[in-house]
Amino acid sequence: MNFSPRRVSMSVRPALHLLPLELRIASIGKDDLPSFTYPLLQMTLGLLGQQSSCRQNHFFSFTETKNDYSLILDNELFKELIQFPGSEALQVAPESWRPLTIEVGAFGSLTGISKLVASVIGPLADEGVSVFCLSTNQEDYVMVKEKDLYKAMTCLHPCFKLLAELEQDVQLIENFSHDNVPNQIKNDLNYIELPSPRSITHPFTCTASKFHVCSILPSTLPSIAQPLLQLMFYNTRSDDVFLSLSIISDDISMVLDARDIDKFPEDSVYSSEAYWKVITIGDGPLGFDECGIVAQVAAPLAQADISTYYICTFYNDHTLVPEGSVTKALQLLNKYLMSSKVDNSSSPVSVGSLNGLTHPPSQFRTEPLPRLPLTNPVA
Amino acid sequence: MNFSPRRVSMSVRPALHLLPLELRIASIGKDDLPSFTYPLLQMTLGLLGQQSSCRQNHFFSFTETKNDYSLILDNELFKELIQFPGSEALQVAPESWRPLTIEVGAFGSLTGISKLVASVIGPLADEGVSVFCLSTNQEDYVMVKEKDLYKAMTCLHPCFKLLAELEQDVQLIENFSHDNVPNQIKNDLNYIELPSPRSITHPFTCTASKFHVCSILPSTLPSIAQPLLQLMFYNTRSDDVFLSLSIISDDISMVLDARDIDKFPEDSVYSSEAYWKVITIGDGPLGFDECGIVAQVAAPLAQADISTYYICTFYNDHTLVPEGSVTKALQLLNKYLMSSKVDNSSSPVSVGSLNGLTHPPSQFRTEPLPRLPLTNPVA
Repeated sequence: MNFSPRRVSMSVRPALHLLPLELRIASIGKDDLPSFTYPLLQMTLGLLGQQSSCRQNHFFSFTETKNDYSLILDNELFKELIQFPGSEALQVAPESWRPLTIEVGAFGSLTGISKLVASVIGPLADEGVSVFCLSTNQEDYVMVKEKDLYKAMTCLHPCFKLLAELEQDVQLIENFSHDNVPNQIKNDLNYIELPSPRSITHPFTCTASKFHVCSILPSTLPSIAQPLLQLMFYNTRSDDVFLSLSIISDDISMVLDARDIDKFPEDSVYSSEAYWKVITIGDGPLGFDECGIVAQVAAPLAQADISTYYICTFYNDHTLVPEGSVTKALQLLNKYLMSSKVDNSSSPVSVGSLNGLTHPPSQFRTEPLPRLPLTNPVA
Repeated sequence: MNFSPRRVSMSVRPALHLLPLELRIASIGKDDLPSFTYPLLQMTLGLLGQQSSCRQNHFFSFTETKNDYSLILDNELFKELIQFPGSEALQVAPESWRPLTIEVGAFGSLTGISKLVASVIGPLADEGVSVFCLSTNQEDYVMVKEKDLYKAMTCLHPCFKLLAELEQDVQLIENFSHDNVPNQIKNDLNYIELPSPRSITHPFTCTASKFHVCSILPSTLPSIAQPLLQLMFYNTRSDDVFLSLSIISDDISMVLDARDIDKFPEDSVYSSEAYWKVITIGDGPLGFDECGIVAQVAAPLAQADISTYYICTFYNDHTLVPEGSVTKALQLLNKYLMSSKVDNSSSPVSVGSLNGLTHPPSQFRTEPLPRLPLTNPVA
């Protein structure tokens, strides 16, 4: 397998939406869920309810892995979570994040993060902007730190119409400078190159379980509360547990162990493809400052036309690929795994010198994170 | 209004079922619900699930009043509740209770506890057996303390075929002595007299709210989880809150504030009559040892052909009457309220001397209960 950079047609200049939400990323320890059940159930029931007004302008993502219950919440939901005694057990990433969604034009049959590699993921990595990604069946959300927002939008501006959603209005923002545009974009705004695969800095694993990536209609939500809450709060899967629910206004997706689909009433959840496999990136916490991880993983998969859902959690990243492509995907990732190691196997990997990683990670840790102090989200 | 004792036809000798369950009565303080949400949600989701096997042989009753969340649970569910940290905040009645259900023959149009006054409630009060009652749309459950069980069944034996349900089998028990039969029953096993109204020992109140007494089909339970859990855990009613859910195998009932019925999908809950009012007995905790309270309240209502649902909670008793009968019911209860007071208004009420109360209450308290130690249910 040998991939040369390809040029991808950007026949239309797609829109990049900046959602009017400030997000917090948090983690509940596997043993601490009972302490958070009351506020977490309250917000979940509110979002599952029949009134779509409860969902408007909310961002809720809940992912159970073997390590923790990982949450991405808008500020309002986050405040609900921390108002109860016991919330000091919550781990919270220290900074706020801003979600961008991208309506992408013609990228062939690719879905998920793969289709954003050329125009978003690669350029942000080259600019030293660390990202937190969440794919759903409808959208891919790329989150950047509040403090990196201007840099990120400046970097993405040449490829996109920038739209900021402010309450009900959508405003076009055109006042970004073109000085800071990555070279491969500057050459030709209608054709951009898929970036060359980079060295992959973190090991990855893939368990035996198979998953469904499901869509749920908002009108169906109330009727699936019983099995959904049962899975969220009382999942009996052990080591290879992976369950993800995201409710972002009316964009509702779930990643579900294939063995659990029968717990839902017939025709209540819609699966886009038969089975997906979860590849987990990192054998220790990845932290929030390292940049380029998504680009490292997604670029070779995009080159090989493999669709990729990408779900970042508090500790690790997870890339989902169709079951039929998993062998090829793992071969590709293995090819680039710590490739600098092969060149110079006697010396330890110098993270800062890896291809495409312009900013060395300041939080590169291999030990479990210390409990972070609870940051007051109120500015 | 003047009621003379009436004779009620017992054209068939109905069956009295002793369920193979040991019940615990517990109370969660209004501020302590978050600590119990995890185990309480777990058992509720299990009971709401589609598999009726999860409901078989379970007894679950949850009643929210302005004072507390009152629970009647079989031993297995009770153990689920107390296995988590924080369960020391639970108040638990010190003894175990055994539930009896009675298939009653021809009692005219009466429903609820009213139809049991002559054959069950009155005789047990006369025998000094304190009871804890729970009406549902299908059954009336009369609970007696484990230690009073033999006495209770001996007392009720002349009127009923005694059936003990042991796992899947139902056994006819006929080895009770006739020595201890109350006189009004002994005279004629086919006709028993409604007992004369007794003095009512506790004041009562009736709030403005109207309620539905609803039946729920087991197959419908999963689909109403969202609004049901929302009401159970996040009820926003204040002073006159009353919400009761009972799931006893496939006998599922709910007492619901009329303003909340719209939260449930159309045709998901069935209401037996338009509106009911809740009359709350006691202005302080009633305790568990006083006997005769149900008989005092239910007898005059039965005499006047008023149907009565009766729901005992940890602190108070509650009798539900149809909205159209509430004025009459309150007049009747007022007539008998502390009637000995009228005879001898200068001296304080001597509780032990009240008509029909053969055993003075040992736990007659007017102050809030002290927190009881958590009793280990494992014998």
